[in-house]
Amino acid sequence: MTRIAVCAPSTPITHEDAERVAALAAVEFPGVELHVHPQCFEVEGHFAGSDSRRLDVLVECANDPGFDAVWFARGGYGACRIAEDAIDRFSHVAQNKTWLGYSDAGYLLGAFYRARIGTSVHAPMLADIRRQGGEDAIRRTLGFIGGDTSGLEPSLESHPSVAFNLMTLSMLCGTRLMPGLARHVVMVEEVSEYLYAVDRLFFHLTAHLGGIAGLRLGRVSDVPENDRPFGCDAEAIARHWCERHAIPFLGSADIGHDAANKIVPFG
Amino acid sequence: MTRIAVCAPSTPITHEDAERVAALAAVEFPGVELHVHPQCFEVEGHFAGSDSRRLDVLVECANDPGFDAVWFARGGYGACRIAEDAIDRFSHVAQNKTWLGYSDAGYLLGAFYRARIGTSVHAPMLADIRRQGGEDAIRRTLGFIGGDTSGLEPSLESHPSVAFNLMTLSMLCGTRLMPGLARHVVMVEEVSEYLYAVDRLFFHLTAHLGGIAGLRLGRVSDVPENDRPFGCDAEAIARHWCERHAIPFLGSADIGHDAANKIVPFG
Repeated sequence: MTRIAVCAPSTPITHEDAERVAALAAVEFPGVELHVHPQCFEVEGHFAGSDSRRLDVLVECANDPGFDAVWFARGGYGACRIAEDAIDRFSHVAQNKTWLGYSDAGYLLGAFYRARIGTSVHAPMLADIRRQGGEDAIRRTLGFIGGDTSGLEPSLESHPSVAFNLMTLSMLCGTRLMPGLARHVVMVEEVSEYLYAVDRLFFHLTAHLGGIAGLRLGRVSDVPENDRPFGCDAEAIARHWCERHAIPFLGSADIGHDAANKIVPFG
Repeated sequence: MTRIAVCAPSTPITHEDAERVAALAAVEFPGVELHVHPQCFEVEGHFAGSDSRRLDVLVECANDPGFDAVWFARGGYGACRIAEDAIDRFSHVAQNKTWLGYSDAGYLLGAFYRARIGTSVHAPMLADIRRQGGEDAIRRTLGFIGGDTSGLEPSLESHPSVAFNLMTLSMLCGTRLMPGLARHVVMVEEVSEYLYAVDRLFFHLTAHLGGIAGLRLGRVSDVPENDRPFGCDAEAIARHWCERHAIPFLGSADIGHDAANKIVPFG
């Protein structure tokens, strides 16, 4: 039996989200025991509870030897406010955890990878059940936890890899949470950002990625319509800034804010 | 006679913008000669001409000994794409220039300040004529160029100071354009960003501002309404992150994306 704790370091989910995923897990993944922490449903302003509440619950899940994995319920925003304090309070038990999530959860995945605590995995989150085809996203994460590798991002190869939301990784750069990414393949995806903002983020990010093995571009989706066209697409933007910093552009990655989002274990 | 070159390293202005400012300058600032480069009206995708075109014109204005100041026409986005190449092509003549602008022009102000080329000044731009009360913004910049110090940001004191758009300075961090800001008072303002995005930018920025004398918060305006309240205001956000990094929070700064935006000479 694999025991998974679900907590919400960023924003809340609904009881309906949790019930739908629990029902799917009960039928299709009998080897998985899902424990959705009640904190996942709490609301304080933008967040799923105050910083101290989200921190306490993340630490509780991490330090509980009864759990094999900690699955982040949903992104949004907020994990960067508690990541550093969480690491300070982790016991040796946290070392054995697998951490799963993406988007805003990338602050935690990155920080734990930097600190070499457990195994960080870019993977669909519980709240992805809301997406069209969201059941498949849930199956991918639960299957991976159970040992099924069919949901892995297909380009994974000999180089160590990481996957991040473009904004999240850009904000990590230069902070105490940023992992060293030398010799890594770095995959990035983005959602709901104007192309000029994507360009701006690539300006910033590529200045910090010297020494990586290469960059792969995931999906850049739901780009808002601007008052005028930007003039080139997201791939051309990525190629421009990679070339500027002598970073090999390796092509596309099968990740994004959608139900097809594939799994990338860090390292 | 003070001769000012106006160019557009980011996005274009209209002939009407230029004509209104030229008319105001002709009547009220007879000691100023305004040369609006035709590139300011060009359009290519998001930008006021291609990267190479905007770069050429910026370099042309900077290296022309007939100009005392280079006034950036408008922000938007685009200056970070040409700042580094511009410096590579500047002659010794650029050393005598005063550079004026804010918002996206901050990439240039910061980069030139880092490279110790001329004098960078956070100041209203030509396109501010469009704002309600925009004539006063234009008068502030033209007056400052002519020696009038009444438009200076009122908190300027013994410490060297800089002023930036929050997003712009956050994106500069860790890049080859980022000036050293140790012992500086750093003023930041923002416009049209959600409060969660402001919080995210402060998470990032304050991690890079160790050793500054303190931070002042300009106006955070036109905050879009989110699907839920963030839970605290921009000042509380700034105080939170300053405290986290032991940065003195010094209060407000009279800068922002508005006609009241005051002048901050760097240094």
